[in-house]
Amino acid sequence: MTAPPRALDPLTYFPAPRLQHFCSQCGTPVTYRVPADDNRERALCDHCGAVHYQNPRLVVGTVPVWGEHVLLCRRAIEPRHGYWTLPAGFMELGETTLQGAERETQEEAGARVEMGNLFTMIDVPSAEQVHVFYLARLLDTDFAPGPESLETQLFLEADIPWEELAFRTVSTTLELFFEDRRKGSFGVHTPTLAPLRAAVPAGS
Amino acid sequence: MTAPPRALDPLTYFPAPRLQHFCSQCGTPVTYRVPADDNRERALCDHCGAVHYQNPRLVVGTVPVWGEHVLLCRRAIEPRHGYWTLPAGFMELGETTLQGAERETQEEAGARVEMGNLFTMIDVPSAEQVHVFYLARLLDTDFAPGPESLETQLFLEADIPWEELAFRTVSTTLELFFEDRRKGSFGVHTPTLAPLRAAVPAGS
Repeated sequence: MTAPPRALDPLTYFPAPRLQHFCSQCGTPVTYRVPADDNRERALCDHCGAVHYQNPRLVVGTVPVWGEHVLLCRRAIEPRHGYWTLPAGFMELGETTLQGAERETQEEAGARVEMGNLFTMIDVPSAEQVHVFYLARLLDTDFAPGPESLETQLFLEADIPWEELAFRTVSTTLELFFEDRRKGSFGVHTPTLAPLRAAVPAGS
Repeated sequence: MTAPPRALDPLTYFPAPRLQHFCSQCGTPVTYRVPADDNRERALCDHCGAVHYQNPRLVVGTVPVWGEHVLLCRRAIEPRHGYWTLPAGFMELGETTLQGAERETQEEAGARVEMGNLFTMIDVPSAEQVHVFYLARLLDTDFAPGPESLETQLFLEADIPWEELAFRTVSTTLELFFEDRRKGSFGVHTPTLAPLRAAVPAGS
């Protein structure tokens, strides 16, 4: 087995490994190299010929609105246990981004919504993710925390717990939401989040 | 090893298997079941505890414009060898959707572009994909087919080979592009492509 191409933090990646040691199709150890018809290193199986591509994942969620309020959930799971978030989670096979966003809103906040337009598509290359948020209108206030939430609560803009938000894609989406609401029209926003820890310049 | 949850077409999935038989972390056969804290079946490793999630993949590309023309590539690879496409491909780890779209435009068409706004985000749940296209302006006409293209050619709307387009996300994006161009303003469009073969109603 060749050396893996990079080290991964087991706390971040366990129990969902991103670093592949064995072929998932036939169980043979994989080797990392650039295939003949490709231009980057892949996990290859020399036994069955499988090429194991890895690609960024989509996280889908909503900005659930009730009048002047926005619904947030306090996370009951890692990462960022105890911090507030918009309802969102990994997109599943067989669903659309909109269906996934609505499902996560139901699962995390027990909330029924009328789905609106795409609002943000945020690139997070350092996390190998793209986060997609849709606008949504709560149909009632019969929401309740699901198994992955400690609390669900409506917030006015002035009361948003900015310092206790779980993820930068959430704070970015909320900032853009309140900005657009003041303007009276909602656009589609596609920011990129830079890595939190900037690279140290050579020689410094 | 338990039975896989569904049959996959090896022609579609080889050499990039989506159906997992072995743990990619430790090489033990996986079992498919719903984890205690989850609500859908996953590939689980009872030896090392890994949970192997599978999620939809992003395909990223551009609508490269030169005056009244749009640049298309004729595919030199399967699927849809010989058919025309907008430059697009699977998003890679560590890049943004915009960077991936620009990279694919360079790789497939040898084209240098000034990237524009997000134009379409198309859900293709039957393919477990989301296709994202950005508007782009060609900087010159020094394009040339890359290793995955047979030809690269500029087309006026009237000359688009609609019957020889590779994918529905390409025809949908081109239709929306010409529609918006006639209107004189480009929006962001988020259609969903329904499966081509509709389910046969019970009893029919």
